[in-house]
Amino acid sequence: MQAFVMNEIGETGLAEKEEPEAGPTDAILRPTKGLICTSDVHTVHGAIGDRENLTLGHEVVGIVEEVGEAVESFEPGDRAVVGAITPDWGSEAAQDDHPSQSNGALGGWKFANVKDGTFAEYAHVNEADANLAHIPDDVSDEEAVYTTDMMSTGFMGAEHADIPIGGTVAVFAQGPVGLMATKGAALQGAGQILAVESVPERQELAEHYGATEIVDFEEHDPVERIRELTDDRGVDAAIEALGSSATLEQCVAVTRPGGKISNIGYHGEGEYVNVPREEWGVGMAEKDIVTGLCPGGRLRLRRLLRLLEAGLVDPTPMTTHEFDFDEIEEAFRLMESKEDGIIKPLIHFD
Amino acid sequence: MQAFVMNEIGETGLAEKEEPEAGPTDAILRPTKGLICTSDVHTVHGAIGDRENLTLGHEVVGIVEEVGEAVESFEPGDRAVVGAITPDWGSEAAQDDHPSQSNGALGGWKFANVKDGTFAEYAHVNEADANLAHIPDDVSDEEAVYTTDMMSTGFMGAEHADIPIGGTVAVFAQGPVGLMATKGAALQGAGQILAVESVPERQELAEHYGATEIVDFEEHDPVERIRELTDDRGVDAAIEALGSSATLEQCVAVTRPGGKISNIGYHGEGEYVNVPREEWGVGMAEKDIVTGLCPGGRLRLRRLLRLLEAGLVDPTPMTTHEFDFDEIEEAFRLMESKEDGIIKPLIHFD
Amino acid sequence: MQAFVMNEIGETGLAEKEEPEAGPTDAILRPTKGLICTSDVHTVHGAIGDRENLTLGHEVVGIVEEVGEAVESFEPGDRAVVGAITPDWGSEAAQDDHPSQSNGALGGWKFANVKDGTFAEYAHVNEADANLAHIPDDVSDEEAVYTTDMMSTGFMGAEHADIPIGGTVAVFAQGPVGLMATKGAALQGAGQILAVESVPERQELAEHYGATEIVDFEEHDPVERIRELTDDRGVDAAIEALGSSATLEQCVAVTRPGGKISNIGYHGEGEYVNVPREEWGVGMAEKDIVTGLCPGGRLRLRRLLRLLEAGLVDPTPMTTHEFDFDEIEEAFRLMESKEDGIIKPLIHFD
Amino acid sequence: MQAFVMNEIGETGLAEKEEPEAGPTDAILRPTKGLICTSDVHTVHGAIGDRENLTLGHEVVGIVEEVGEAVESFEPGDRAVVGAITPDWGSEAAQDDHPSQSNGALGGWKFANVKDGTFAEYAHVNEADANLAHIPDDVSDEEAVYTTDMMSTGFMGAEHADIPIGGTVAVFAQGPVGLMATKGAALQGAGQILAVESVPERQELAEHYGATEIVDFEEHDPVERIRELTDDRGVDAAIEALGSSATLEQCVAVTRPGGKISNIGYHGEGEYVNVPREEWGVGMAEKDIVTGLCPGGRLRLRRLLRLLEAGLVDPTPMTTHEFDFDEIEEAFRLMESKEDGIIKPLIHFD
Repeated sequence: MQAFVMNEIGETGLAEKEEPEAGPTDAILRPTKGLICTSDVHTVHGAIGDRENLTLGHEVVGIVEEVGEAVESFEPGDRAVVGAITPDWGSEAAQDDHPSQSNGALGGWKFANVKDGTFAEYAHVNEADANLAHIPDDVSDEEAVYTTDMMSTGFMGAEHADIPIGGTVAVFAQGPVGLMATKGAALQGAGQILAVESVPERQELAEHYGATEIVDFEEHDPVERIRELTDDRGVDAAIEALGSSATLEQCVAVTRPGGKISNIGYHGEGEYVNVPREEWGVGMAEKDIVTGLCPGGRLRLRRLLRLLEAGLVDPTPMTTHEFDFDEIEEAFRLMESKEDGIIKPLIHFD
Repeated sequence: MQAFVMNEIGETGLAEKEEPEAGPTDAILRPTKGLICTSDVHTVHGAIGDRENLTLGHEVVGIVEEVGEAVESFEPGDRAVVGAITPDWGSEAAQDDHPSQSNGALGGWKFANVKDGTFAEYAHVNEADANLAHIPDDVSDEEAVYTTDMMSTGFMGAEHADIPIGGTVAVFAQGPVGLMATKGAALQGAGQILAVESVPERQELAEHYGATEIVDFEEHDPVERIRELTDDRGVDAAIEALGSSATLEQCVAVTRPGGKISNIGYHGEGEYVNVPREEWGVGMAEKDIVTGLCPGGRLRLRRLLRLLEAGLVDPTPMTTHEFDFDEIEEAFRLMESKEDGIIKPLIHFD
Repeated sequence: MQAFVMNEIGETGLAEKEEPEAGPTDAILRPTKGLICTSDVHTVHGAIGDRENLTLGHEVVGIVEEVGEAVESFEPGDRAVVGAITPDWGSEAAQDDHPSQSNGALGGWKFANVKDGTFAEYAHVNEADANLAHIPDDVSDEEAVYTTDMMSTGFMGAEHADIPIGGTVAVFAQGPVGLMATKGAALQGAGQILAVESVPERQELAEHYGATEIVDFEEHDPVERIRELTDDRGVDAAIEALGSSATLEQCVAVTRPGGKISNIGYHGEGEYVNVPREEWGVGMAEKDIVTGLCPGGRLRLRRLLRLLEAGLVDPTPMTTHEFDFDEIEEAFRLMESKEDGIIKPLIHFD
Repeated sequence: MQAFVMNEIGETGLAEKEEPEAGPTDAILRPTKGLICTSDVHTVHGAIGDRENLTLGHEVVGIVEEVGEAVESFEPGDRAVVGAITPDWGSEAAQDDHPSQSNGALGGWKFANVKDGTFAEYAHVNEADANLAHIPDDVSDEEAVYTTDMMSTGFMGAEHADIPIGGTVAVFAQGPVGLMATKGAALQGAGQILAVESVPERQELAEHYGATEIVDFEEHDPVERIRELTDDRGVDAAIEALGSSATLEQCVAVTRPGGKISNIGYHGEGEYVNVPREEWGVGMAEKDIVTGLCPGGRLRLRRLLRLLEAGLVDPTPMTTHEFDFDEIEEAFRLMESKEDGIIKPLIHFD
């Protein structure tokens, strides 16, 4: 079958690979729609080390092609979505309510990391009953594919921020995950949502998803501006959706004592993430720093799909570009360059 | 001054009373707008025992008339709202994060219970710095008065229900508190909100506030209907907003194992509230029953006001009737009879 | 193989049965030590309906006899303990952090309920990697067998009670689960542990496990006595370890506003469990009622075994009687009659 | 009256000062016993900026000398303890369950920071009803004075660590706060408590307070040693009780994915506290960093006193030295130098 692979650091291309096989609890999915993620770009740039002939991708929906003998809830022909993160549900980390960390740090992240990803004619799904979800009839493939990572990760950012009803939150960076964190904050009942962003198209989408004010860091110092907008109280919570030590530092600075810093950015560089000592109240101001990796699993997916079904979330305005699978290299280059106002490129496999 | 009082069980009327005085940390508020609450009706009917010459009412906004010497944040002339519940913030219960229970069960409930209420020319506010909040300029008195109880109690119902993003919830009864519980569920990101109600006007408002489906208990058995609407899974949470043992029983029945029953109804009758043994999983199905009394306090009020300011909540469609203060007896009778499609009667003091 | 079975309601005996077989993720355990549980007695008395030729028992340790092809962490000859509750870890309930409710209310309870139990020469363990744990060398079989249910359930009672460090708790009934709830309260840092019990041997053990005072309900009204011992404040939490509506009622009465009632008793009788309306603060006193079913799983078992290994808990004083497997009927009769000061009868399979 | 003051950075001495006066809700306490805290030393060294003629000290018990007119629960002659932290209970931070941050970061910390401390003949206590607690008859002054800070802060370290029953925890540094964190971990039911310390006397006390193993960082690399002692799993939680960026880094390294880092150390130096990026799972390993400032308040104090009353904690082995009030300068110098195996010097005022 055809697959879009990373050959080595910095090099990608379409390749011919063996079709995957399903063990007793697994399934094989035939992707119909997919999205490229910035973390695919990070991976190709070497963020998780070298890889050879590794299929990329972790955001797809598709049709179940084959199921293992022990799979009970799915059968060939079912329209289904698989989470970007596919935990081992019996692992001790999952038993401890941290399934994304199953069998080691970030261990639930298997696609395009420790096994082939989903940008291929067929993709292998472990623990199919637990990691797939049926897509309701009135939810489109394009909508559903946003549940795999963007909605799940972004909303988690807001959930971890523990925003009180009517509370205040700042969301740093309005890429697709940040936009979904903004929407997540709205879905948690925030009363003031400050979206930190300088790109006009992203500012516009941030407002669409519920930002009550935009903080343009090219116009203002964001820390000062957020203090001003909160009558010098600081926000109840700040969400880091970029993955930069400097941004985390700003998050700590703008959060009130007793507030939460919720990190969803992938910190790809540097030896340390720096917490500013004084702004952090010399380690005693009760500004907790909470982190997470995209939640996976059937239950999570079903809940996110329910929001789509009820029309409470529409992620499709984030689809700025579309490509056929045989053009995926081009889509990838665009995601890499972040040119042309790209937010998410949708890949049509069918 | 004039006050609307309960003379004895079953008897109310306007009376002349002494003006209240402010101790060092107190304030005196001159009400401008108020709302009558069904619990005022319960009180007059004897639910908390007999009272003599007790001023009724606990939902008002107004103008600060006088402040004690130790009050720092308010001064005469300020436009302010006071919570229906005015806790003693130094009490052990408040230190334990249960301020509404300060100095005894329901001890934060002072107005029209252990001291004169707010339906008078002047009302006494304890711990003014902690129990009043300034009303933002672009929030009307009518909007603000809903934060005192209806929004605070209803939203608490949703907060206690611990609804996951995209989760399912049933809200039993769509009176004003139930309607705000429905809105609260929407503000918590619920994906399916089933509003149990038979009165058409209330059904309509329920949909306005975010109900995704109406369960009319005159047309269907609500337990069966909710099971059907959730593919026999039950809801993640059920909110009891009526105060009836029979309704609580239905809440237990429709909640999935591991879900929450959030009680906000005032249970006014009977020796027991009955939990159905088998539906409750013989005490082992992890269906927790959580209760609460309206949260008060400046921080809570400020957060609720922020939702009004941002236009995220509009409670005014619940105002079905309006009266001047000298017509308050008439308003009270209407609230008692629940006739004429009444939801909330707004009282103009000014 | 030989098994101790329930033939029908009220009738038990040893029987010859087929040996179980292991599917790909399963294991077969050969029990070495076991304990009879009061819930085995309930089952034989018909509490969960009729059963035919069902092997009883759910508290054993043993030697792994056989493992399925997909089992990674265990191999034949390993000394292991299996939880009384063996969840389906991929189920939605487990994904929601309620594994004991997997695939339906109490669905993790499989042994001697929906499949053969453990009182046999061989027992079948589902999801072996997730539901078994190795027993450390310096923990005896007799100690380890208490982790399966008594320690896990009793400690859960204390965990759900959410006892603050230095807080106060009342534990109603000091059978083996109640005793472990008492020990659990001590392990949570309670400052006052009131053990409600009238049997002298159990009172003594309660003190051994950390009770700071005994409330003998044959000498005092327990509600009055507990109010007296807490200067009329009530306890921070009450644990129901009997399974009686009357006891739950007392729990509600003795718990302070804002406190927790933690139910671990199996409520075997009556249409309703009755919550006393006034003592419950008419549904607004923030006295939450929390329930649970014994947590299972490898992680839980490992943590409980660690307490045994460190010498922080010694459950063996609860072993009041010992029997060989061929005398199990006699042990069962004793557990049924609760005669001879029995707390737990240890069964030797080897 | 006589007071032990900081004259300027680096300079202390006894001085004559005006006696404090009680406002309506305040009390004046006459100290009988006190303890010097390392944070007094930090203050004199300039950690919180310069101060002139500021009375030092925040750990005392004493006799109530005078109460304001609105104080209800205390009267002159009462034996009482005051928390090191004396929050404004009506502040928004306290309403948000962060009383130690009332009216600004660390705002509950008033003694020897924003007002005169307790090392004087008389000390001023704000909100006396909420910030004092009566000392039970069978608790000595020396025992009680440990509740003000050492027990409250140390135990908070363990509470924030969210240690599961039977879980594993590493406590970095075994000064008096670290020792109480170790005891706190024991009181939370930890199954393995690894105390990181190199001073033999402190190692011994750590074992006395419940450490199951000592990690001597002069003998082993503590990160490697802790990994080894946890079968390479890492601990469920790590407690930082020193206040060093390098130590926090080790805490992050030894904590398993999904675990907690609980900071109670006062970070006195450097621009940043450094979080190691890779060990922190690039910001996605769910290793949350939680901080806190000593909880104060009557309820907290009463709970800690209850542990002393029940004999469940004995802090007095930490008293290594004793001084009369007129020798306090000498005690202070010893605390500064950390010589002579000092842990805590007890000051006799009477």
